[in-house]
Parts: sequence; C-alpha cells; structure tokens
Amino acid sequence: MPDSSQPLSRHQAEDGILEPRQIPTFEECFPSSEKKLLEVPFAESTLKVPFRRIHLSNGEHLDVYDTTGPQGHDPRIGIPKPRHDWIQRRLARGDKNFSQMHYARRGLITEEMAFVAVREGRSADFVRAEIAAGRAVIPANRCHPELEPVIIGRNFRTKINANIGNSATHSSISEEVEKLQWSIMWGADTVMDLSTGHNIEETRSWILRNSPVPIGTVPIYQALEKVGGDPAALNLEVFLQTLREQAKQGVDYFTIHAGVLMRYIPLTAERLTGIVSRGGSIMAAWCLAHHQENFLYTGFSQICEVMKEYDITFSLGDGLRPGCLADANDEAQFGELRTLGELTKIAWDHDVQVMIEGPGHVPMHLIRENMELELRECMEAPFYTLGPLVTDIAPGYDHITSGIGAAQIGWYGTAMLCYVTPKEHLGLPNRDDVKQGVITYRIAAHAGDIAKGLPGARDWDDALSKARFEFRWEDQFNLALDPVTARAYHDETLPSEPAKTAHFCSMCGPKFCSMRITEDVRKAMADKSIEFMDQGGSVYLEKRVEV
Amino acid sequence: MPDSSQPLSRHQAEDGILEPRQIPTFEECFPSSEKKLLEVPFAESTLKVPFRRIHLSNGEHLDVYDTTGPQGHDPRIGIPKPRHDWIQRRLARGDKNFSQMHYARRGLITEEMAFVAVREGRSADFVRAEIAAGRAVIPANRCHPELEPVIIGRNFRTKINANIGNSATHSSISEEVEKLQWSIMWGADTVMDLSTGHNIEETRSWILRNSPVPIGTVPIYQALEKVGGDPAALNLEVFLQTLREQAKQGVDYFTIHAGVLMRYIPLTAERLTGIVSRGGSIMAAWCLAHHQENFLYTGFSQICEVMKEYDITFSLGDGLRPGCLADANDEAQFGELRTLGELTKIAWDHDVQVMIEGPGHVPMHLIRENMELELRECMEAPFYTLGPLVTDIAPGYDHITSGIGAAQIGWYGTAMLCYVTPKEHLGLPNRDDVKQGVITYRIAAHAGDIAKGLPGARDWDDALSKARFEFRWEDQFNLALDPVTARAYHDETLPSEPAKTAHFCSMCGPKFCSMRITEDVRKAMADKSIEFMDQGGSVYLEKRVEV
Repeated sequence: MPDSSQPLSRHQAEDGILEPRQIPTFEECFPSSEKKLLEVPFAESTLKVPFRRIHLSNGEHLDVYDTTGPQGHDPRIGIPKPRHDWIQRRLARGDKNFSQMHYARRGLITEEMAFVAVREGRSADFVRAEIAAGRAVIPANRCHPELEPVIIGRNFRTKINANIGNSATHSSISEEVEKLQWSIMWGADTVMDLSTGHNIEETRSWILRNSPVPIGTVPIYQALEKVGGDPAALNLEVFLQTLREQAKQGVDYFTIHAGVLMRYIPLTAERLTGIVSRGGSIMAAWCLAHHQENFLYTGFSQICEVMKEYDITFSLGDGLRPGCLADANDEAQFGELRTLGELTKIAWDHDVQVMIEGPGHVPMHLIRENMELELRECMEAPFYTLGPLVTDIAPGYDHITSGIGAAQIGWYGTAMLCYVTPKEHLGLPNRDDVKQGVITYRIAAHAGDIAKGLPGARDWDDALSKARFEFRWEDQFNLALDPVTARAYHDETLPSEPAKTAHFCSMCGPKFCSMRITEDVRKAMADKSIEFMDQGGSVYLEKRVEV
Repeated sequence: MPDSSQPLSRHQAEDGILEPRQIPTFEECFPSSEKKLLEVPFAESTLKVPFRRIHLSNGEHLDVYDTTGPQGHDPRIGIPKPRHDWIQRRLARGDKNFSQMHYARRGLITEEMAFVAVREGRSADFVRAEIAAGRAVIPANRCHPELEPVIIGRNFRTKINANIGNSATHSSISEEVEKLQWSIMWGADTVMDLSTGHNIEETRSWILRNSPVPIGTVPIYQALEKVGGDPAALNLEVFLQTLREQAKQGVDYFTIHAGVLMRYIPLTAERLTGIVSRGGSIMAAWCLAHHQENFLYTGFSQICEVMKEYDITFSLGDGLRPGCLADANDEAQFGELRTLGELTKIAWDHDVQVMIEGPGHVPMHLIRENMELELRECMEAPFYTLGPLVTDIAPGYDHITSGIGAAQIGWYGTAMLCYVTPKEHLGLPNRDDVKQGVITYRIAAHAGDIAKGLPGARDWDDALSKARFEFRWEDQFNLALDPVTARAYHDETLPSEPAKTAHFCSMCGPKFCSMRITEDVRKAMADKSIEFMDQGGSVYLEKRVEV
C-alpha cells in the first residue's frame, strides 16, 4: 500500500490491482481549451496556479477555474507533488501544528493561502483572515503533496464534492481511480472516498496518489471493518488508530459523527425514516449497546491532536440528518447541529479547521432555516450540505431533486455542495452517473455564486450569451460546462459544417429565429432613430430617456 | 384537415400523413398502477374524472393526479369526446360567450368546473370563485370535446406545459403526435404546438383530436406563413382569420404578443441578447416596418370577440422576456408586464380568461421580483413561466438550469411552468428529450406545491419514503415519478429477484445500510426504554420530554 512518503515503484504498481482505464482526454472533453499554469513567485517557491483558457473564434478568450489536475500521468505512478517542498520546509523548522488555521492566526500566509488567493482572484491577506476566523478552510494534509489547494468558504467560489468509493457488492480500485479522474475532469472540487467494500486502504492510497483535489473520508467505516463489522465492538483506540493510518496516507478531511449524542437518539424514534447517515446509525447503535455517550464526543480533544499534526480538516458529520421531507428540520437534526457548534469551539481551540455537514432531504420552504441556524450555532464555520433534495418522489432523478435545493442553499451561503447522482437511493454510481452528478452540481454552485453576488461570477454566462446571440456556434459549444454534449445535441439534427455558422438552429428553423429577426430590428432601429431625431424625437425615444 | 365537428373517417386518416408509432404503454410505464375514473353525477351528466391508483405490496394504495388520457386508441381515429354533450347543451340554449369566466361570474358552475374540483379535491364553488376572480383559468375551447378539463391557478396543483411542434428543418406529424402522447404519459398538463414548419394545420388537427389536455398555440406563426414569412406583411385581418381557423380546430389557449409596444423596442437595443421570443421579434419587426403601434394591442378588443365565442384563454406573451441573465428584470421586460396587466383588464371586461407569460433567463436572486410584480400588475392572473433558467453556461442541461428556477417560481406562486428540454438552444427535442423535460418539470412543480403548502402535496413523498425505509423496493419503484428508470438503475447492479426484498442496495452494501442499522437501533431503544423506565427515567427519555 503506497503512502506519500514512499514513491511507488513501477514494480509495486504492477503487482497491485490498479489497471489503467481509458477516459476521454482533457482535449477531447474541452475543445479549444488550454490548460494553463499561472506562475507566481511566493516566498521560496514559484506557485503554479492552474486555470483553463477557452479560446474563442473572435480572438477573445475566457479564463475559468480548473479542477482537472495534471494530465497524462500513469495512475500506477501517480501525479506530481507540487507541495513537497512547502511541507519539507515546515518539517525542517520543526512545526508541530500544521493546520492552516494555526498559521493564519499567527499572521502567516502559507503557500496554500497564496495559491488559493491567486486561484480565486482575492488578496492573500483576505484569505488568511477568513481562515483565521474559521469562515473558510483549506483542507490540505501535509501527507498529500499532490494537492492543488482549494479554499472552502462562503466568501469564495462555491465548491462541489463528488462521492466515490466501492461497496461490498460492487466496484474495483481501477474503477474508483477512474471515477476520481472523471469527477475532477467535469469540475469536482473535492472528492470523498466512501469505500466500504474490499481493499479500502489500497483504494484510498491510489486515489490519493492520483488526486490534485482534497480527499475526504469517513474513518468510522474502516474502523468498523477493523472490529469485524459490529458497531458495539468499536472504541476510541481503534478509531484513533484508523485516523492515524488514514492521516499518513494523506486524507485531507474526515467526516466525524461526534454530534450524535445519546439524548438525540430517542428523538429519531418517531421519524418516518429514522437515521439515514451510515456513520450516524453506527454511532447510535454503539451508544445504545453501551448506554454511554458517543466516544467521538467524549474523546474529541484526542481526535483534535491527530488532526492538527497533519492538518486534517474536520467535516463534522450530520449523523441525524433527515432522510425524507417529513423528517426535515426536526429536533434531532437541530439538536445535533447545536452540538456541532460546541465541537467547533473545541476544534478551534486547537486551531483545527472545521466544516459543518448539513442535510439531506428538505422542502424548499425549510432550507433557509438550515443555513441561518448553521451560521449562528456554528459561528459561520463553512457549511457543507448534501443537496438538499426538495422532494422524495423521483428516485432516478435525485441529481435534479437535490440540485434544486443545492442551488438555493448555495445562494444562502453554503460553502460546499455534496453532489447526488441519478443512482442515489438505488445503487452505486458508475462513471456516467458521476458526470451527471458533477455537471448538475456545477450548475447549482454557479447559479448560487451569481445569486450571492460573487464578483465576476456572471462573466461566463455573459460570454456564452454573447456567443449565442452572435451565432458563434463553436464558441457556444466550447463555452458550455459540457462542450461535448452541447455539440452532440446540436449536431443530432444539423450535423453539417455550414450549420456551425448558420444564423438559426433546428429548434426554430431559419424563418422563426428570434435572434436573426432581432438583428434586423436593430438595423431598422438604427435607421429609424435617425429619422425620428429629424422629427424632433419619437414617442419611444422619449420614453427611453425617462427610464 | 379534421376538426372537432367532423368525425375522421378511417379513409381520411389513411390518406393523411399520420402513421401510428409505438410508444411504451401505460402499463409498461407504470407497473402496478391502475387507471381509474371517478364517476360523479353532475347536472345532466356523469363526470368521469381520471386518476391513477398505485397499488402497493402492503395492501395500501396511493391515488395520484393523472394526465395520461384514454389509452389504446388509434391516433388516426382520435380519442373519445367526453365534453361533447356539455357543449351541445350550451349551443342548444344559444349561449354567446362560452368563457368559463363568463359562467363563473354569473354564478354558474359548469361541468368543467365540477370536473376540476373533483380532480383537485376542492369544492366546486371554490373553483368557480377563483375563475370568476381571474385567479385561475380552465382553458377549454368548445371545439375541443376530447378535453379532460384542467385548472391553472396558484391555489391549485402547479401545472406544467410541454412544448412540441416541428420546425422547417425537422419532424413529421406522426412524430409530433407521438411527442404529445409521450409528454402526457409522463405528466404534462398542457401541451403547446409550436410548429413552424410544414403542414402546420394538419399537425395541429391531429394533435387536438388526440389530446385530452389543453392545447396552446402561437397563432402569429401561422399568420406569418400566410403572408409569405415577411413580418411587415402581417395585419389584423390575417391574424383574426388565423385565430378563427385555429379556434374552430379546438385550440384551448393562444399566446398573443400584444404587449410588445413601440416604446419598449428601443429598450432592447442595449441588451446582450435583444429579443429572444419569436413572436416578440416578429411584432417588433412589424412595428418598426410600419412605425405604428402593435396591431395586436390596438386590435385587442376584436381579438377578445373571437376568444369568448370559443372560450379560448389568453396567454399574454412575454415577447420581451430576457434571453440571458444579463438582460433579466430590465425595463423592457417590466414595461411589457405592465402592459399585459392593462390588457388583462380589457380581456376581463369581455369575461375572457387570461394567463400571463413570464421569463426566461433570470438569476435566482431576481426571480421573486418577477412573481411579485406579476401579481400586482396583472391583478393575480395566473402566471405561466418558461423556467426561468438560472445560469446560461450549461447548454445541453437547460432542463436542469431551468428546473431550479421553475421550482422556485412555482413555490412563489406561478400557476404553470413551461418545460425546457435538454435540447433547448441547440435543436428540436425528440421523444427522449420531451420525457426528460416533463419529468424535470414534474419534480419542480411538485417541489413548489410542497413549499407553498398545497394540501396533501407531501402525501406522495411520505408514501415513497415509508416504502424506502421498509425496504419495499417494488413499491419504491412503482411510486417513483418514473418507475421504469428507478427500477433499471437499481437492477443495473443488483438485478436478482431476492435483491427486491433485501434490506440494502449496492450503494452501501448490507453491512453499511443505515436504515437496516436504524431498525436495530429502534429495537434496542424499545428494550432500553423499558429498562430505563424501571430506573425512574433515563437521561435521554427525560430529554425527550423537554422537547
């Protein structure tokens, strides 16, 4: 099993279970796009900050945020390690608490902070201040040198997470590495490996060695495996040991269900769907078996010690999140949320970074309350929600039911949206499902960014709309979130080359194209306005002045 | 060309261009569902109100609203005509104004009102009052006897519209009839035939003779064809003649762009995407060519005369809706909206029913203003919006970008949501695209109904969630909006029969199923609670009392 301290030998890799698979290349996915690195000198390093430049047919270009990472590397070798030197310097000077929050609170701007500042177009000091205040996190384990740092906070671009990972019934290491690559190709900002099946450790290692994005896990899954699958057999020692193992591999954030307290469990008894978080149900089972308080809660300070040694970010799990509309915003859920706020204070006392996980299944009119309570109870720590799904009646389309809720809660201030795929509630997502989930969530996150007024968010929309209005079809495709699909849909009915410059498409045909007629209207207006001016101003030009 | 007064002979039909095509049957689409008609005596008729009963494996059932219409009829013959007798009686007594609003305002409850009252689970008098006040409409042309009446108003279930229709470059009559059948199979409440290509009249006739749902059109398209495609050659006479022809065929509502006034046109000059409504751009071109006010505005009263003679509902078109986020909520759009309010008053003076069309492309934070202005300026006439799309960057996924906005504006009070398919902006939708659009919009409409507190809306969600929690997989599939897809996704990884009763799926596998663990937790809680009672109450049982 590889970890970040050992380079993988070719031999090791070939003995392993990882078989390279084929996904379309960056160039195939994003025609006319160029992957670029902005080189910025900082301290003793040169930061290489990635972005994607979309070249347009009119000579212009649009630069967009890029999550895709280094391309063309053999997954059995892994990707380059841009953070290697940064971390070595910290180790050399004998740092003990590696948390970005720790550095930020002492006034230090790290390479990671400078990197995300460039990436987001904000000042490094603003980034530092947000991290110091706990309003943003940079999940960046010092054993994950492959990372291109990412900031998660509501004053930055809304991030999305893709869940991958096998289960006991399905998938292989190769498939999971492929899902990682595919999810970041389409825009996942972080990836959680939720494997619960075979080869948990090996799968995670291969994912980390190939991941330029932060990787999250739910360590209780592996701890449960260690004790033979019986929740009652769990204890803090096994859990801490699991944390240390995963920490050394380079996991950047841990979901920990430390807020599932004994007193909340009976509150779930009358629920329609009880406890739907895997971690939450495991901890509830433990509490009831022992009639003792959750050991993740009582042992929380010991957990913080591991977190700061590696700079792992807490993702405080919502083990009691609602699993259906009927259970939304109930006392079990909000009781746990208050406890997560209490735990946030403890983590912050250790200078450990914290995100707060949120629901789940929530009807639209109850979404805002979740955001408001989270900001208040958890002192503005970044909120990280799953959806929420706004109806329960559409299994097979839960990327959409949840994308609706995700867009809203993103607008209200959620910092990261955990995707839901079309397979949710039905089975393990495959590569295609991962893409559907990621694209849907990029839509939701972007819509949220526009609505919350993130500077520059609408530039992308405006560039695409301008291309649309000017019948620059190739630019319209290349500017799309998913150029391949946009082009394929267009070409399904009008595949010929001339159609790519035509002033219409098959939807309306040439005579009924409003945009073509508008061109004529504008020409006519230009002529008429001169004529009206001669007559001393027309009805509608006067009106225009009024506006 | 058939119209409602002539039964189609087999011969006529076979000479026509309509070739029956195959779509999956009702039984194939909705396993364990039964199409039922609730028979309710009313006046001289027995109303047969359709609903769908979903039979569950535990002996329970759920009844849901059904749009699918009579099944198994040869499209070359058409479907039965339940309204035939109702209309004959009105003709026999010499009625002149057939508008539902006219009857409602005179205190009469029509068969249509009684029908929708049963369908929606409301009192007939409530329906009548809403129609009389103009807050709801029942589009029901007296020449469309095949109709199963539908009410559109914000105090009723939110409706969705599917656009079909050919263009000059694509599609056939048979394909369009198939799209009609397919869209109502999945839940379209009304269908607009937006054909602009060949055989406009024949296509429309075949659609009407096979449609149990209200059919809308944009008559200016055909009027433009009549004058050879030159907007400047249009006039009120040609337009009125077109209205009368389509009225006789049975069209239930007309989109009429009477609010595109001369003074608004210059307000579009600085827009990023100008005028994107086909009808709007045609009328703008006419106004500029003649330097005269829009003849649909100046001739509006004459148009009202046709509307009331057949009971056709106005769908006052938003010819100046924004075509991109940058143009949302501007003075051109809102100026037109105020004019639509002015026209609503005129229509209501004629007792003609009115809906108001709305945007378009609107970022989330600007959606609510649209609804509030519409209610105020148009005196609560039902709002009928296209999406809105909340970002412009995802061609190929605009069912999703618009579904997000549709759910929100539905919640805020929009009465009918016009779907957008994945092909929007790219090409003419095919049958699969129609299904994607309809399902996405049923999700949005239902989510809106729950959020706005429509009585009973959440029952469906609760039934599905209960089935999910109890591992009734078959019920979970059968209760889904799209049972076929839900089942297929599940079976992709666990196809065997035993998996249909298993207490897990491939997403988490057996050991990590939270719902299975929750079952154990509940059992443990039941045991513990007895034990704690003996000890005089436990920590958490006490807590529970506090809640």
